[in-house]
Amino acid sequence: MGKGNVLVGQSGGPTAVINSSLAGVFKNAKERGYNKVYGMRYGIQGFMDEQYIDLSDYVKNELDLELLKRTPSAFLGTCRYKLPEIHENQEVYKRIFELLDKLDIEVFIYIGGNDSMDTIRKLYDYSLLTGARQKFVGCPKTIDNDLAITDHTPGFGSAAKYIATSTKEVIRDALGFSYQKKNVIIEEIMGRNAGWLTGAAALSKGEDCEGPDMIYLPETPFDVDKFVSKVKELLAKKDVVVAVVSEGIRTKDGKYICELTAGSETKDAFGHIQLTGTAAYLAQVIYQEIGCKTRAVELSTLQRAAAHLASKIDVDEAFNVGGATVKAADEGSSGVMAVIERISDDPYMSTTGVYDVHRIANGEKVVPREWINKEGNYVTEEFLDYVRPLIQGHYEPMMVEGLPRHLTMNLKNYDWDKK
Amino acid sequence: MGKGNVLVGQSGGPTAVINSSLAGVFKNAKERGYNKVYGMRYGIQGFMDEQYIDLSDYVKNELDLELLKRTPSAFLGTCRYKLPEIHENQEVYKRIFELLDKLDIEVFIYIGGNDSMDTIRKLYDYSLLTGARQKFVGCPKTIDNDLAITDHTPGFGSAAKYIATSTKEVIRDALGFSYQKKNVIIEEIMGRNAGWLTGAAALSKGEDCEGPDMIYLPETPFDVDKFVSKVKELLAKKDVVVAVVSEGIRTKDGKYICELTAGSETKDAFGHIQLTGTAAYLAQVIYQEIGCKTRAVELSTLQRAAAHLASKIDVDEAFNVGGATVKAADEGSSGVMAVIERISDDPYMSTTGVYDVHRIANGEKVVPREWINKEGNYVTEEFLDYVRPLIQGHYEPMMVEGLPRHLTMNLKNYDWDKK
Repeated sequence: MGKGNVLVGQSGGPTAVINSSLAGVFKNAKERGYNKVYGMRYGIQGFMDEQYIDLSDYVKNELDLELLKRTPSAFLGTCRYKLPEIHENQEVYKRIFELLDKLDIEVFIYIGGNDSMDTIRKLYDYSLLTGARQKFVGCPKTIDNDLAITDHTPGFGSAAKYIATSTKEVIRDALGFSYQKKNVIIEEIMGRNAGWLTGAAALSKGEDCEGPDMIYLPETPFDVDKFVSKVKELLAKKDVVVAVVSEGIRTKDGKYICELTAGSETKDAFGHIQLTGTAAYLAQVIYQEIGCKTRAVELSTLQRAAAHLASKIDVDEAFNVGGATVKAADEGSSGVMAVIERISDDPYMSTTGVYDVHRIANGEKVVPREWINKEGNYVTEEFLDYVRPLIQGHYEPMMVEGLPRHLTMNLKNYDWDKK
Repeated sequence: MGKGNVLVGQSGGPTAVINSSLAGVFKNAKERGYNKVYGMRYGIQGFMDEQYIDLSDYVKNELDLELLKRTPSAFLGTCRYKLPEIHENQEVYKRIFELLDKLDIEVFIYIGGNDSMDTIRKLYDYSLLTGARQKFVGCPKTIDNDLAITDHTPGFGSAAKYIATSTKEVIRDALGFSYQKKNVIIEEIMGRNAGWLTGAAALSKGEDCEGPDMIYLPETPFDVDKFVSKVKELLAKKDVVVAVVSEGIRTKDGKYICELTAGSETKDAFGHIQLTGTAAYLAQVIYQEIGCKTRAVELSTLQRAAAHLASKIDVDEAFNVGGATVKAADEGSSGVMAVIERISDDPYMSTTGVYDVHRIANGEKVVPREWINKEGNYVTEEFLDYVRPLIQGHYEPMMVEGLPRHLTMNLKNYDWDKK
């Protein structure tokens, strides 16, 4: 008797390379002789409503697979849905496992971050209680790079490359205007509690760019008065000051800077506050205190969606780690997450491994204090040595009519006879 | 006796390809046997303070020239400086022409938009009054595409390509999250009075993307209540609504939407209000009126600085039109601007020409009403047929350590022995 089926889902905030992991899962599953590869629509939330597809209906050949690797956002759709604790509500679990049996699922892969690994942990624990046959494996994903154990997460490298490139371009733009005019740029970067992405803006520093003047990570408390003083001090010496701040910077009392301004505040299903407006608030403070030209630049969702500037290392690692999840399950592992292990820094080399998901779930990896300078306003060379290999190389988009082509479920065929 | 020197400057807001025009000026001037090519630092403003460089000190070989074509923002630095009318203050003109004679300038090239063409016009008029020997030629530049006569302006195509690509990525990102959750995205695009760039977001519409739901240009009055109704109407049928708005949309009474919110307002030297916050304001209105998740995305200065995604057509045309300015002066023209003439739409072909700068200066070219739909919330196929050729092709950045390399004046040499 042949192998059964694989079910794969995507969860949480998407990245530029989350579909490269999906492509890796699909290809490895096919090569290992699994029958069908089903995709959950909108993660576990959609799956419970019996929303799923057969990936072969959309990935029909190797060109489609390559397109999928270059398509940003979650091809299958994503969700932010938190499973209840098993002791709170077993009905949900019964429902899910009934569906798994109905679809003859042998392997359940969930591509996501901390919250998604929590889902894998719970499903695996429930399978132990009931003796269910399915294997549950997590595939790491998040631009924030805040997952424990894995050296880094797929998605981080491409976001870092986009941020470093954009920061370089924003700085160059600002310098062009600097004659007899003071100008303060404040750039806001994603990453609630972990400053990996914010720190990556420092990669813009090099032979042809001096990089940002200050970088503020959420790992150290932020002092608005000290910030204003620092800007004043720099403006006495130079015309353009560029500060990069995390959306999640807080005062020493733990209050988000973006909460200091009047604005709407919404929370997602996990109780996370939606953060925005940190740079806009600080730009306003600088304008009021100093009176010079200020500009707030928020890189917004482009940080996680800019597949047109994906890092080759990142796309390839995302693909490999996707394949590694199927391999792990096929070799008998369950309740694990595939991880990336760095073998060497220089030259950079990595491989994949697996790790007990109980050790990973809900543990947030932040930037170590020793990788932030003493003043708390820049990252160190060690930080940059860690990040730099992850932004190397370029995956050329497949351009159609001047724009990157994406693989989508409702692709239309061109009407050659239009007009 | 050989030829004298060329002086070139850059003015106004930079673009991704303004340095490609500079490269075209430099190369053509050298090939036509001019002696030195001087660059004004920070436009006419810096030049009056005797700030200039010899471009040969920085563009030393053909690789440098290629790098210059790929470097965003004004390599020479730019300014927003308005020359007085000749009858108001002749001292300024005496000063400039003294400097021109001192440097043995024969050709004066100014790369810029409407305000810069105004500078060319005044200097040319003064040269007629005094019989000065210099030729004055303007080179068109602006992401806004609001210059008259020229079919389009260099810089517009690359900004349009960046906006279309980013819009496509933002839409894909939003769609991934659409399960049982309403989501409204409002994207804000540059262009004070002309909606060319805002309309270019519609290029994202294609076989693999449905494009934005609404596009609001500054050419038609904006009605906040109608906008809210339209969003409500769409949300009844679909989960994700994407609206693209110009930073310059106004109510029928002429009030900027971004002025409806409390915020600081600053003006530049030309009396232009610095516009920002339109999307943020509308997102807040939608959140208050409808209560669903909203997100404001401002593409900010990246629209004019994202050389990493420059259009090949645009880079090449910018280079050619730069060369055409020197050619025009060398052949005896003065008081003219080089223009791009479209020879054919399909296949797209263009050439350069010259045109009397008096016909161009201060005349703003906006999107014709018939290229906007009746409801005033989208552009027509004619609009797209006009723009699409301008975003074609890609200029591969020269990547160093994973990031695009730029040519700068204070390039440092790598310290191979560091550590």
